[in-house]
Amino acid sequence: MSNPNFLDIFFYPTSVAVVGASRNPISINYRLVDNLVKLGFKGKIFPVNPSADEVVGLKAYARLKDIEEEVDLVVSAVPARMTMGIMEECVDKKVKGVVVVSGGFSDAGELGSKEQAEMARLLKGNGIRAVGPNALSPINSANNLLISFLPTQKIIAGGVSLVFQSGFYDPRLNWIFCDFHLGVNKLLDLGNKMDINEVDALEYLAADDSTKAIAIHIETVKGDGKRFVQILKDTSRIKPVVVLKSGRTAAGAKAAASHTGSVARESDIVFDALLKQCGAIRAYTVEEFFDFAKAVGFLAPPKGNRIVIASLSGGEGVIAIDASQQHGFSMAKPGSNTYAKAKAIFPPWEVPLNPFDLGVCSQFHGWDGVYPTFFESMIADVDVDCIVVGLPPFGFMLKPEEACKPFLLGKGAGTPVAVWMPAPHQSLDAFIEALESNGVPVYPSAERTIKALSVVYRYHNWRRTAG
Amino acid sequence: MSNPNFLDIFFYPTSVAVVGASRNPISINYRLVDNLVKLGFKGKIFPVNPSADEVVGLKAYARLKDIEEEVDLVVSAVPARMTMGIMEECVDKKVKGVVVVSGGFSDAGELGSKEQAEMARLLKGNGIRAVGPNALSPINSANNLLISFLPTQKIIAGGVSLVFQSGFYDPRLNWIFCDFHLGVNKLLDLGNKMDINEVDALEYLAADDSTKAIAIHIETVKGDGKRFVQILKDTSRIKPVVVLKSGRTAAGAKAAASHTGSVARESDIVFDALLKQCGAIRAYTVEEFFDFAKAVGFLAPPKGNRIVIASLSGGEGVIAIDASQQHGFSMAKPGSNTYAKAKAIFPPWEVPLNPFDLGVCSQFHGWDGVYPTFFESMIADVDVDCIVVGLPPFGFMLKPEEACKPFLLGKGAGTPVAVWMPAPHQSLDAFIEALESNGVPVYPSAERTIKALSVVYRYHNWRRTAG
Repeated sequence: MSNPNFLDIFFYPTSVAVVGASRNPISINYRLVDNLVKLGFKGKIFPVNPSADEVVGLKAYARLKDIEEEVDLVVSAVPARMTMGIMEECVDKKVKGVVVVSGGFSDAGELGSKEQAEMARLLKGNGIRAVGPNALSPINSANNLLISFLPTQKIIAGGVSLVFQSGFYDPRLNWIFCDFHLGVNKLLDLGNKMDINEVDALEYLAADDSTKAIAIHIETVKGDGKRFVQILKDTSRIKPVVVLKSGRTAAGAKAAASHTGSVARESDIVFDALLKQCGAIRAYTVEEFFDFAKAVGFLAPPKGNRIVIASLSGGEGVIAIDASQQHGFSMAKPGSNTYAKAKAIFPPWEVPLNPFDLGVCSQFHGWDGVYPTFFESMIADVDVDCIVVGLPPFGFMLKPEEACKPFLLGKGAGTPVAVWMPAPHQSLDAFIEALESNGVPVYPSAERTIKALSVVYRYHNWRRTAG
Repeated sequence: MSNPNFLDIFFYPTSVAVVGASRNPISINYRLVDNLVKLGFKGKIFPVNPSADEVVGLKAYARLKDIEEEVDLVVSAVPARMTMGIMEECVDKKVKGVVVVSGGFSDAGELGSKEQAEMARLLKGNGIRAVGPNALSPINSANNLLISFLPTQKIIAGGVSLVFQSGFYDPRLNWIFCDFHLGVNKLLDLGNKMDINEVDALEYLAADDSTKAIAIHIETVKGDGKRFVQILKDTSRIKPVVVLKSGRTAAGAKAAASHTGSVARESDIVFDALLKQCGAIRAYTVEEFFDFAKAVGFLAPPKGNRIVIASLSGGEGVIAIDASQQHGFSMAKPGSNTYAKAKAIFPPWEVPLNPFDLGVCSQFHGWDGVYPTFFESMIADVDVDCIVVGLPPFGFMLKPEEACKPFLLGKGAGTPVAVWMPAPHQSLDAFIEALESNGVPVYPSAERTIKALSVVYRYHNWRRTAG
C-alpha cells in the first residue's frame, strides 16, 4: 500500500487561498470564503481577487504571488478558461494542493477535456496534487474547514466520512447537519478526478483513525479497478463502507460519461457482485445512501437478528413486521420475565409483546409512563437483539434530554435502538435532535428504519463470517 | 351492485354525538370534540359525558337520550366494557350510524371477539350500520367533519379519498395537510370491520363523483373476496386506486390477525397478481402509499413515457436517469427548435438538454433566469411527454406565486411536471406549498418523484390498453 498521506494537505491545511473570491454577498464565490469565516476555520484564509481590497472582512490579494506567507491549499473558482493561468501561479507559489471548483473541463466536451489534460500534466510535473476540476472540496469537522456554495449554518462532527463524485450533496449540507443530524468527519468531492480519485480517497479514509465509517458515491471507477476492489475489501474488514453507484443503467452511464468525462467500465451486475464480495453496503438511492450512512455511523452491531418492534398502533406494527421479515430479521420472543415486567403497562386486556402496541398502552398509562418500562424490560431480555420504536407523536411533557433517557438504555447493554417517526412535526425537533446527538438514529418511516438497521446487522455478520 | 349510499350518513351527518367526550384538554377524547369545533364542522355537535355540563364550550349531555334532537351519527369512545351499553342507547335513540372508536374487541382476544359479535348482532338487528370498532372515522373535507385524536390544525380539500384498516395514519394528519399538502376528499378508518368493510368503502368511493382517486390500506379482505376484486377492477377503470397491503409476510399476517382479529386469506403473490389484473397500483411501503396517492391526485396522465430531467448538478442528473430507466421511462430527445431556444441559458459551453443541468446554467444566468426558458422550450416540444425538475435550493428572490409560474406551464399543455427537493429547507416551504396547491407534486428525492410519476403513466397506460 502506497503512502496516502498526500491527502493530509487537503484536510489539514494551515492556510487556504480562495482564488475567485467574490465581494458580492449573493455570489456563490462569496460563500466559499464566508463559510470558512463564519464556521471558524482553524487556519489562515487568503481571498484572491484582483479588484477587491477586502472580502468578507479579510484582506484580499490581487494575485496568489502577492500573499507573503506560504499557501498550503488553493481553492480555484475562476472561469474554466482562466483556470490554467491560476494553476501556473500555483506552481510559482509552490502551493501544496489544489482544488479546482470550476466546471467546464472534461464535463464540457473536447476543448475542456484537452485543457483538463494540460492542467493535469502541469500540476503533476510540479508535484502538486489536485482535487477536481468540477469539485467542491473538502470538509473537515476537526478544523471547521468547509468549501461550499451553500450558506452553511453549522458543522456537526461525527465518525462518518463521505466521498462524492459530484456536488449533488452540496445543497443538502444544512439538511445533513441541521435536520438529518449526521455527524461528518471528512468530506471529499472528487468531481472529474483529473488526479485524485476514489482509490486515493478510500485508501486515505481506511487508514484514518477518526473515520469510523465511510459512505462513497461513485459514477465510475477511474483509478485501478482491481486495486479499488482490493482496498474496498480491506477497508470493509475494519470499517463499514456504504457505496452509492450511479450511472447504473445504460442511459445513466451514458450521462455520467458526458458530465464528468468518465466511462463506466463494468456492468452494474458485475459491480453488484463485486460489492457483495467485498462486504461493502450498496445503496441504490440517495435516500438509502444517507439512511445507511447514519445507521453505520450511529449503531452498534446487534448480537443477532431477533428484533422487537414497538409501534403506536397495531396497524403500524404489522407494517414494521413486514419490513423486518423482508430485511432478514426474525421476531424476538420476549420471555416470561419480560412479560411479567411489561404487564404493568398493558391496557386492561392482554397484548402481545412483539409487536408491542405502545399507542394503546399509552392511552391507559400516559406516554411518559410506558417507555421506561418498555425499554427496561426488553433490554434486560437475552432473547432480544435489537429494538425499533415509533416516536410518540404527541410530544412529551418532559425536556428533550429527559425524554431521551429510556431510548438510550440500549447503549450500555449493547442493544441497538432505532426510531421511526410516524408524524413529523416541528414540536418533535428538539427531542429528535437529542436522540440523534446521542447516537439513536431517527428515520421517517418504520420501513426505512428497519432497512437501515438491517445493513448494520448484515455488515457485521459478514465481518464475523466471510470477512 | 347494491346501493352503497348507507355510507352517506357517515360522511354527511347533520349531527354528531361524541360519547365519552372529555373535559380534560390533554385527553385524546377531548380532541374528538375539539377538532370538530376548531375546524368548524358544518353540523351539530353533542358531547356526551355523564359528569360534565360543558365540553369545549358546548353543552354536554349525560346520556344519549338526553339529547332533544335527532342524532345522525354517534362516535363512541368509552372503554370497551362500557360500549355495549352505549350501543343499546344508540338503538333506543334510533341513531343512523355508529363509529366505535374504542379498541379492546376482536383486537384483544376471545372475550373481546365475543363482545364484538354481540354488538354487531344488536346493531344489525336494529338496522344501524357501524364503522369499527377500533377505528377513528370519518373525515370529510366538504363539511369539515374530522374525527381524530390529533390536534389537527387544518383540513385541505382535494380529490383523493383514503381508506385505512388501522389508525396508523392518525398521528400523520397534520403532516398530510400542512407538510405533504395532500388534499383529501374523504377518509374512512375501518378498524376491526365488524360491519362496514373494504368492499363497502370502495364501492361508495367508486360512485362518489367528488373522489377523483382512491388510496386504500388493507391488511385483510374481510368482505366477499371475489366482489372485492371485481369492484377494484371496475373502480380502476374510472379512477386510480392505490393499495397498500400490509400483513404481506407470514409474520406480518400473523400480527394482523391478532390486532384486528382478521385472517389474511390470500398469499401475497396471489394478491399481487390480482392487483395487477385489476389495474390497481400497489404500494409496498407507507411512503409509497402517500407518494403514489399524491401523484394520482395531482398529475395528469403523460401522453407517453418520454421524460426530460432537469437537475441542479450533473451528478443528480445521472441519479435521476437511473431512476427513470428503472421505472420504465425513456429519455426524451428534445428537437432542434428546443435546442435553439434553450441555448440562451447555456453556460459558455455546450450542454446536453437531457438531463439538463440547470445548476451550472444558473451560475451564469441566475436562478430566476433559467427556469422560464427551460419550461417554455421543453413544453413546446412534441417529443417531450413529462418533466421532472430539481427545486432550486437557494430560494428565489421572487414571491412564491411568481416563482411557481414557470412550473405551472405544463398544466395547460398537458405535460405533467413533478419536482424533487434536493435540499429541504424552511425557506422553501412557501414556494413548495404554492407549487402543491397548484397541483405540482414535490417529493424529497429524484428517485421518489420519478417512481411516483411512473405509476401515473403505467396506470393510464393500463386503462388505455388492458383496462
